[in-house]
Amino acid sequence: MTRTTPIDLRSDTVTRPDERMTAAMAAAEVGDDVLDRDPTMRKLERRVAEVLGTEDALWVPSGTMGNLIALSLHLRRGDRFLAPRGTHVLTHELGSAAWLAGGMPEPLDWDAGPGRPSAGLVRSVSGGSAAYDSLRDSLLCLENTHNEAGGAVIPPDEHAQLVAAARDNGLTIHLDGARLFNAAVALGVQPAALTVGVDTVQICLSKGLGAPVGSAVAGTAEFVTEARRMRKMLGGGVRQGGVIAAAGLVALEETERLRTDHDNAARLAAGLTELGWHVNSPRTNMVLATVPDVGHSLERLRKAGVLAVPMAGRVRFVTHRDVDSGDVDEVLRRIGKAD
Amino acid sequence: MTRTTPIDLRSDTVTRPDERMTAAMAAAEVGDDVLDRDPTMRKLERRVAEVLGTEDALWVPSGTMGNLIALSLHLRRGDRFLAPRGTHVLTHELGSAAWLAGGMPEPLDWDAGPGRPSAGLVRSVSGGSAAYDSLRDSLLCLENTHNEAGGAVIPPDEHAQLVAAARDNGLTIHLDGARLFNAAVALGVQPAALTVGVDTVQICLSKGLGAPVGSAVAGTAEFVTEARRMRKMLGGGVRQGGVIAAAGLVALEETERLRTDHDNAARLAAGLTELGWHVNSPRTNMVLATVPDVGHSLERLRKAGVLAVPMAGRVRFVTHRDVDSGDVDEVLRRIGKAD
Amino acid sequence: MTRTTPIDLRSDTVTRPDERMTAAMAAAEVGDDVLDRDPTMRKLERRVAEVLGTEDALWVPSGTMGNLIALSLHLRRGDRFLAPRGTHVLTHELGSAAWLAGGMPEPLDWDAGPGRPSAGLVRSVSGGSAAYDSLRDSLLCLENTHNEAGGAVIPPDEHAQLVAAARDNGLTIHLDGARLFNAAVALGVQPAALTVGVDTVQICLSKGLGAPVGSAVAGTAEFVTEARRMRKMLGGGVRQGGVIAAAGLVALEETERLRTDHDNAARLAAGLTELGWHVNSPRTNMVLATVPDVGHSLERLRKAGVLAVPMAGRVRFVTHRDVDSGDVDEVLRRIGKAD
Amino acid sequence: MTRTTPIDLRSDTVTRPDERMTAAMAAAEVGDDVLDRDPTMRKLERRVAEVLGTEDALWVPSGTMGNLIALSLHLRRGDRFLAPRGTHVLTHELGSAAWLAGGMPEPLDWDAGPGRPSAGLVRSVSGGSAAYDSLRDSLLCLENTHNEAGGAVIPPDEHAQLVAAARDNGLTIHLDGARLFNAAVALGVQPAALTVGVDTVQICLSKGLGAPVGSAVAGTAEFVTEARRMRKMLGGGVRQGGVIAAAGLVALEETERLRTDHDNAARLAAGLTELGWHVNSPRTNMVLATVPDVGHSLERLRKAGVLAVPMAGRVRFVTHRDVDSGDVDEVLRRIGKAD
Repeated sequence: MTRTTPIDLRSDTVTRPDERMTAAMAAAEVGDDVLDRDPTMRKLERRVAEVLGTEDALWVPSGTMGNLIALSLHLRRGDRFLAPRGTHVLTHELGSAAWLAGGMPEPLDWDAGPGRPSAGLVRSVSGGSAAYDSLRDSLLCLENTHNEAGGAVIPPDEHAQLVAAARDNGLTIHLDGARLFNAAVALGVQPAALTVGVDTVQICLSKGLGAPVGSAVAGTAEFVTEARRMRKMLGGGVRQGGVIAAAGLVALEETERLRTDHDNAARLAAGLTELGWHVNSPRTNMVLATVPDVGHSLERLRKAGVLAVPMAGRVRFVTHRDVDSGDVDEVLRRIGKAD
Repeated sequence: MTRTTPIDLRSDTVTRPDERMTAAMAAAEVGDDVLDRDPTMRKLERRVAEVLGTEDALWVPSGTMGNLIALSLHLRRGDRFLAPRGTHVLTHELGSAAWLAGGMPEPLDWDAGPGRPSAGLVRSVSGGSAAYDSLRDSLLCLENTHNEAGGAVIPPDEHAQLVAAARDNGLTIHLDGARLFNAAVALGVQPAALTVGVDTVQICLSKGLGAPVGSAVAGTAEFVTEARRMRKMLGGGVRQGGVIAAAGLVALEETERLRTDHDNAARLAAGLTELGWHVNSPRTNMVLATVPDVGHSLERLRKAGVLAVPMAGRVRFVTHRDVDSGDVDEVLRRIGKAD
Repeated sequence: MTRTTPIDLRSDTVTRPDERMTAAMAAAEVGDDVLDRDPTMRKLERRVAEVLGTEDALWVPSGTMGNLIALSLHLRRGDRFLAPRGTHVLTHELGSAAWLAGGMPEPLDWDAGPGRPSAGLVRSVSGGSAAYDSLRDSLLCLENTHNEAGGAVIPPDEHAQLVAAARDNGLTIHLDGARLFNAAVALGVQPAALTVGVDTVQICLSKGLGAPVGSAVAGTAEFVTEARRMRKMLGGGVRQGGVIAAAGLVALEETERLRTDHDNAARLAAGLTELGWHVNSPRTNMVLATVPDVGHSLERLRKAGVLAVPMAGRVRFVTHRDVDSGDVDEVLRRIGKAD
Repeated sequence: MTRTTPIDLRSDTVTRPDERMTAAMAAAEVGDDVLDRDPTMRKLERRVAEVLGTEDALWVPSGTMGNLIALSLHLRRGDRFLAPRGTHVLTHELGSAAWLAGGMPEPLDWDAGPGRPSAGLVRSVSGGSAAYDSLRDSLLCLENTHNEAGGAVIPPDEHAQLVAAARDNGLTIHLDGARLFNAAVALGVQPAALTVGVDTVQICLSKGLGAPVGSAVAGTAEFVTEARRMRKMLGGGVRQGGVIAAAGLVALEETERLRTDHDNAARLAAGLTELGWHVNSPRTNMVLATVPDVGHSLERLRKAGVLAVPMAGRVRFVTHRDVDSGDVDEVLRRIGKAD
């Protein structure tokens, strides 16, 4: 009896570095990034800043650390921050936004679409009482694309309205752009078009872009100076980080490849719909399926040779660089057979 | 031209100590509550524990500190805690539940009535994934009566179901009982009937009960020992606190008087309804009025000689020991004239 | 067999409010200090500011909270603060300066005398490396009088040099003046002469001054506004605090009485020396005795009817308003008999 | 005019990965270490546990994070921890032991030799008062080798006595073993002989061992489970970390090579002494020189083509795998010429 090799659609984080990346890693010029700056690390950071349209950027081991550093620097102790319900800093970072960054979250409803609060909601919720015993609103945290909402995209005009609303009420703005390149590709715009007006932004090199490790947090030069201290404090400062940064530089050259993932997600969604499943209309690389019993569905999928994860009460499939359209068809075949 | 003395319905916190209290304060036997224990303080703490049905209790300068101590001791850093939307620790304690107690809040909808999440909701929201990268649920925080919901009451049977749901999912339970005596009087039960199954409870002596200063947090003897350390750490340890505790002891003898406040709130609600206002049906001592423009209404009321406060998008009136039924009638007369 | 009533020299915190204070408390005009400001509280705060020469001041339940608020507002997370070895925030506040205010302490040697680091030491220790991975020095915390050093006094000229050293190296300065009035009386200067150049200062009303409860933290109006938020966050905001503040106002009128305590401490030290004890030369109201076995000595004293406490490896006696010169003579008699 | 290539003795952190490491990195089998476990990462962690004699171990991006995780899990908020003066967590981690782990440090004098407090001192300082308002001692943090003391070594018998003293007073023990392999080589013992009795230990792969990035923290399986959560919370969880872990596995095979660094440090110390410098007698790979003006000396060294760093008021030279005995001779030649 043969065992089927499972097709892994749990996340775009499962992607492995390709040969071009490992070659770059082996050849990287490195230095001590604490004592000096590692030259390849620095090259990566400058490239990230250029792509995002910020003054500078800082490599961090994970998107969680990038978000955490930004929130820690933006929030005074006890400040309230607004964020869409289900956003990563609220649900997938083990509470560090609260205990470590010291922020009291105010989750915002998705009144403008999946994962998207409206500018009007930002205006009405924030900037309320100036009474001394009222919570002090100081930050709006956005996520583009929004993971729990199935890779939902905030378009530039809506982004601009959110930024204006936050600014008018005196809020700083942090953008969790772990999958910002997916948003840019889906919208056909440059990434910098999606960071207009924000104070800080975090992007991941290790998700759809395929680098093995690493993210970056970007903003003004002054912010990055403080962020580097905070990174050291949290234990995120590394020495010859150029070995990892080299893979990140390769990853940044291949952002257009994400289009293929999006096409594959659309293909998967269409196929699942034909099979009678209820799924979202994916804008990027995620398909969310509404099922009666998530645990049961995941187990059946697993037995059929398809790996997925639970996500906010649904089943999430993510397409990525290590699956192609043929794999998607095979996934559909396996599911069709199992149903 | 004469100026009307305003009638103050902003909160039951505006009440002033009466002569019986000031006499008790002047006559109090006191000691150094840090080095030894202040005898009057200790008498108050034992009385609170008796009334609430707990092993021991600890005086604290405010309800906020009582809640903060309990949350700090119950939560490991980053733990998630469930609490009804708009509950005091989320909205009126300046974020200390997050940055200081280290908890990530999960606000619960009021699916069982104003201010009241159902036991089913507690069950479905908590105790989810055991994955290492998932938030760890560890606490349910209840509030009885619920301030932002207009003094809403959790009845004993519903309380028991909430406790069972929390226990089944491994949650510790803290009860913010700042106005627990109001709930007990409204339900016609002993306060201890409303603390069954909870780990810790906080009650205020300085709201409807009329003591000038002070609250208490109660639980097991072991909890109180740790709470005393935490109180010292936060700066809430005092020396000859008996001078204040004496007033608290008087306050605890007069809990039945709250019935009058509730009657007055009902009288006020009925009168306002007659005047065409949209108000809640008060169970305790709070009337919440839905108005088109809260700021405008508060200003008109102020000019008419009636003080109220904004509360979660509505106008809140609170009856208390320093207003009687005649004052309520005068309030209605003034509002009627101004409308 | 008769039992001797013990004479309590453990601390000046054991003092009890006198009739003038309890009368003031009973007669105090009060209000809701959260919603409005309590008028007596406000009067006390303005009086404290006047006496200390600051713009404004804020009542707090304890000196620990006053210090904690100041440190929390002065320190960014992880900042290093300099403080004399054995100072109160390091040894008697249960670590809140670290975990809550977020400061890494750098204890300073007493190179200028008991409890007193020199200005030169402040200069050499602080303001070192500007490297991004070096601790950031941001605060000098002084204590006048210094408790663990036996009520040691920093004279105005030395204070001025310390302030200049701190300023030159960019440090903020907080003065723990829990017993500042003792220092002023001992030096024959106004309290404001001992706060020159500091950013914030904390004073206690409940030690030698004899009020039952309370302290104050003082500084600029802007500082006090933020301090009031922080106090609320920590749970130190109270309602009709005027009942306590009234006693504080009385206490502030009687600071000159501390001279008697100092005289009594000198009398006690002289007597103990005659009995062969090794003691400090008290400048204020504390006598520290060096003994072979602290626990044993305390036990013998207790049996003889004299209460004292261990303090940094010595036995501490504190004179205060509830003991007079006759009590001191009786203490010496009892000790002489027991030796 | 030719420019001399500087010889870099600032730290053993400047070492660069060799070809064997880069080859291992390129060939590493990897996986998603958050969703599953990365197989190479896991292999490294098991190997570290084996070498250190612990149940399990966890990769972390830096030694700072390893120490921070251990302290955060060992300390309750405000607990006091004992550590030798100048130890890394006190001086080179930007205060995170205080604000983040929540600990109040108690620096221990070096009464047993450079960097080494005696067991007697541990006994006398810790486990003092059980009074509720006393700091609670809960942890002893050791560092072997001790960086600021010039790579000083704690021998096994002294280690055993320190452990016994800590245990007797109820303290948990964390060992900062960033350079533990240097200690083991210097003492001619296995690394596990230096971890006997400790609860947790941190080791660095990126210092003398030469891996580009990474450390590990080790202890019981239960500790590692919690440490993995804490790592995620701090942002230290990575995805295909195997690419880095592969270099760490190579590094662990080459610990004996550190003997060469120690020989080179001895050669450097002897040569400097001949040149009239005052230096320590290095036990491992660090030479500390006492000079009249550190800044001036460093500048002269730099001009002569020798890079060193300031360390606790002295000049520190560190030998490592990228300098050989010929380089040491060249360093001495350059210094001799410049003097």
